[in-house]
Amino acid sequence: MRRIALVIEYDGTNYVGWQVQPNGISVQETIGGAFYKLIGERPVLHASGRTDSGVHAMAQVAHFDTECGVPADKFCYALNTRLPSDIRIKASLETPPDWHARFDVREKHYIYRINNAPHASAFTRNTALHMHYPLDEQRLQAAAKLFLGEHDFNAFKSVGSKAQTTVRTVFESEWVRRGDELIYHVAGSGFLYNMVRIMVGTMIRIGQGFEEPETVSRALSGAERSLAGDTAPAHGLTLRRVKYDLFDTEKLLFGSEAAKDPAFIPFI
Amino acid sequence: MRRIALVIEYDGTNYVGWQVQPNGISVQETIGGAFYKLIGERPVLHASGRTDSGVHAMAQVAHFDTECGVPADKFCYALNTRLPSDIRIKASLETPPDWHARFDVREKHYIYRINNAPHASAFTRNTALHMHYPLDEQRLQAAAKLFLGEHDFNAFKSVGSKAQTTVRTVFESEWVRRGDELIYHVAGSGFLYNMVRIMVGTMIRIGQGFEEPETVSRALSGAERSLAGDTAPAHGLTLRRVKYDLFDTEKLLFGSEAAKDPAFIPFI
Repeated sequence: MRRIALVIEYDGTNYVGWQVQPNGISVQETIGGAFYKLIGERPVLHASGRTDSGVHAMAQVAHFDTECGVPADKFCYALNTRLPSDIRIKASLETPPDWHARFDVREKHYIYRINNAPHASAFTRNTALHMHYPLDEQRLQAAAKLFLGEHDFNAFKSVGSKAQTTVRTVFESEWVRRGDELIYHVAGSGFLYNMVRIMVGTMIRIGQGFEEPETVSRALSGAERSLAGDTAPAHGLTLRRVKYDLFDTEKLLFGSEAAKDPAFIPFI
Repeated sequence: MRRIALVIEYDGTNYVGWQVQPNGISVQETIGGAFYKLIGERPVLHASGRTDSGVHAMAQVAHFDTECGVPADKFCYALNTRLPSDIRIKASLETPPDWHARFDVREKHYIYRINNAPHASAFTRNTALHMHYPLDEQRLQAAAKLFLGEHDFNAFKSVGSKAQTTVRTVFESEWVRRGDELIYHVAGSGFLYNMVRIMVGTMIRIGQGFEEPETVSRALSGAERSLAGDTAPAHGLTLRRVKYDLFDTEKLLFGSEAAKDPAFIPFI
């Protein structure tokens, strides 16, 4: 029995999220279906974490165990021929048998894209939130900095969260401008359910001038959900990178130079 | 009666092209339908030129005449509320009554995107051609330079072309790398039917090593279609910019700085 890890890119628009759901097609079951066509079995896929309906991934990671003799680095090619074009396996590799895609996560990076132009874009309609209201970049940046470090993110989780502790550490938190887009880049040890989207929703209100950046500090210390803002829409969010001791998806896919640039987005 | 110009962005994936066709929905008739819902009439839309099925536009230009009293710069907002999200009117302005979106074109720019990575991309699947074969950038660039200047492009047109003369002038012709993508940027006085796609198809064979860059010169001087390569797939092509004496779409939409960078793509 071998354990294989997959690095998976998906446009989440047409899926109910990573995990199998009764109300539609998930990314997980779609990859399971490709496996079935390939090797006649449906191995259980363990992902680095769930992504919600409409959320995208540049580098989701999932592992499975198999007796199938396909060379580890060839699973990606074999699966891609059996997958729809909005899901692509970018890499596949063998891991130690006790390595785990979820429990061994060291760091996860997300981006949240806001198209802050007068008109929406025909091209980024599914991958960036369009907001034509002015957003003050200085205020966004000031708010983003307040998330850095270890905090109780209880105010920044959805009711559906089942996490045992709500303390998380944020390593990077900044907004980067690219043309009409404001891209929020956040890296952390882990994230609660809907945490990034609630952080963004809170910052949007601050960027619009309805709240002060210090609202973030109050919500972090008070830890009450009502102190934070709305949950920003799912389609602006992309899981960009997962880091393990064993490998780092960004270095694996794009080389180490790319990984240094928070604004780096390899698709355009 | 006023003449109004529209600057239009579209993801061409779900359309049979700009022009009304019997076999599917065109961009032109979709905008016509939005007009009908807005003002109860269907003005004739004259575009800078047709785009084929699957071809995209960052800045197609079209004009129409109307008696409708909507302020010129408000047509974009009014139409966008009645258009599907893969077509966006980015700007609208009043022009002199004898100005013409097609006959007054001074320069058009296209980009052709090749995703030259081992695996296709879930995100650029509809906007870039995926080729996993190695492409030699030096050879692509050498071939691109040979298109510069005034030439008879008879070898680079499709049989469907009805142009009276096949002489065209190319002002810019270069490949730019962005991550895994090779992006061909071409600017000219005008283009024959399928001309850019045949130019790219010819360069792809050169980049793969099947032909020498000088093939371009032979095809330009011999002017026989058989000397040029295949027509590259439509979905890699995007109409990026149209220049008139009256206005330049790129400066209108993105400011003059953007217009100086051939690799600039405002959507990601």
